[in-house]
Amino acid sequence: MIDKLIEKIKKTGAPIVVGLDPTLKLIPPHILKAAFDKTGETPDGVSEAIFEYNKGIVDAICDIVPAVKPQIAMYETFGIAGLIAFDKTVKYCKEKDLVVIGDIKRGDIGSTSEAYAQGHLGKVILGGKEYRGFDEDFATVNPYLGSDGVKPFMKVCAEEKKGIFVLVKTSNPSSGEFQDKEIDGVALYKKVGEKVAEWGEELMGKNGYSYVGAVASATYPEQGKLLRKIMPNTYILVPGYGAQGGKGADLVHFFNKDGLGAIINSSRGIIGAWQQEKYAQYGEAAYADAARAAVLDMKEDISSALS
Amino acid sequence: MIDKLIEKIKKTGAPIVVGLDPTLKLIPPHILKAAFDKTGETPDGVSEAIFEYNKGIVDAICDIVPAVKPQIAMYETFGIAGLIAFDKTVKYCKEKDLVVIGDIKRGDIGSTSEAYAQGHLGKVILGGKEYRGFDEDFATVNPYLGSDGVKPFMKVCAEEKKGIFVLVKTSNPSSGEFQDKEIDGVALYKKVGEKVAEWGEELMGKNGYSYVGAVASATYPEQGKLLRKIMPNTYILVPGYGAQGGKGADLVHFFNKDGLGAIINSSRGIIGAWQQEKYAQYGEAAYADAARAAVLDMKEDISSALS
Repeated sequence: MIDKLIEKIKKTGAPIVVGLDPTLKLIPPHILKAAFDKTGETPDGVSEAIFEYNKGIVDAICDIVPAVKPQIAMYETFGIAGLIAFDKTVKYCKEKDLVVIGDIKRGDIGSTSEAYAQGHLGKVILGGKEYRGFDEDFATVNPYLGSDGVKPFMKVCAEEKKGIFVLVKTSNPSSGEFQDKEIDGVALYKKVGEKVAEWGEELMGKNGYSYVGAVASATYPEQGKLLRKIMPNTYILVPGYGAQGGKGADLVHFFNKDGLGAIINSSRGIIGAWQQEKYAQYGEAAYADAARAAVLDMKEDISSALS
Repeated sequence: MIDKLIEKIKKTGAPIVVGLDPTLKLIPPHILKAAFDKTGETPDGVSEAIFEYNKGIVDAICDIVPAVKPQIAMYETFGIAGLIAFDKTVKYCKEKDLVVIGDIKRGDIGSTSEAYAQGHLGKVILGGKEYRGFDEDFATVNPYLGSDGVKPFMKVCAEEKKGIFVLVKTSNPSSGEFQDKEIDGVALYKKVGEKVAEWGEELMGKNGYSYVGAVASATYPEQGKLLRKIMPNTYILVPGYGAQGGKGADLVHFFNKDGLGAIINSSRGIIGAWQQEKYAQYGEAAYADAARAAVLDMKEDISSALS
């Protein structure tokens, strides 16, 4: 799947992943109204509205980006109804041949981690038949529990030719509280990065990059530069661009000299573009066209930074 | 909710939480058969079987333990169908007045962490009505992202009078890979423990313990002893007893002098007791009675260790 991701990045010329992180405030009122008219103002109605909203965006961007990243928390907040919208969204994006990165930040140990991995990347077998739970292509994984937490995901990745992105340096202001603390003169995030590189060697794709990727934020470009060096074969998923403050120029050092090695996420900046002054001319009804325009602008911003 | 937990621990005399971590291998064949006869050998059938299995155990133990801890990974592995069984299990346990600790190990940042917190401990408001997602009483939380990840959970806990247990020192062999690494001569897990104590001061219950608890494993009793000292008002959720190797004697230092401050988890050791030689006389049909007997033995083991 890392090979498919790289091929699609090359084909679209856009090292961009669109975060499908719906909130009630981002969904255009006409979509909410249509759903609530059918179901009432309930979690089932929200579930339907989220899916319609996502579908519009996916239809508008699926030919110009390689991947999407639904953030499961935004669905899980509505319980089962929300997770049904997550499930439908993943399926729909895959129908549109997008690579789906499940931003699930799961992490546990042993058979428990394997259960998460099976539910999100793999399958269960019942009565000789395969059943897939959420079936994303990639998942984000939390490394705090060490190899015992990550290896079961890798096992499923090897079987399924899928991948993970391990949290290394997150985008938030307090990410330094633990991640930046020095261990024998080396920051924890760097230790984790070294481990990611080591894990990655066991699962290499054909294009020189591993199935085991890393998350490192655009809001910390210096740390990104360091991580790029110690994880040469690791694809870096880069959050923090746009709404969180990261700019095109901050992204340069996350890429390798081959122009590959990083994929930049934007969520609100794309899916909420219709609410921004810059894209106001699209209006609520054409929210998906606003998202497409925002993707094209982001692509341009990254291209000029890289050239 | 920490006060309710403490009252129930005092009333039952059992600082025990039963992990409801169902796997196909642990469910008695007659329960699987009954479910599959209705639905076919499908995830829906597994969902029904899991719930029936859990219900039997809950009915058999609800008067002798204060709390249960369903591990959501074991449900999530079956996708939506599995999560429906999780949801039903949480509701059923609450009907039986058990305190429910959702072992979800979630952790993200800002509004994303808040979305998880609302989905698992809080509510969403739609059309003036409250809707609750999974509605556990406590949730386990991963601290790798720092305060930005934990504070949104605390915000929801303050509103709902619910609690969290933050992962500090996990039970697995590789937990030391990052957690034991020394920062300025102090292990990371200890730094996290200090942070948990600090966070906890903001959310104190009436009984001298905080709504912000910690997870520290029985498989590392020395670390538990240290954590007990630096987090005097923190309730410690202790995994690793039983199947994972922790013994009664290892538990002593997790408790405070008031006999409180720790709650010990056992999962397979209780819910899979019917498969152990020691409880073989119960047979498959009386698997729930075997679970009850295993709880009573565990209670005895802890009591003698503490006295």
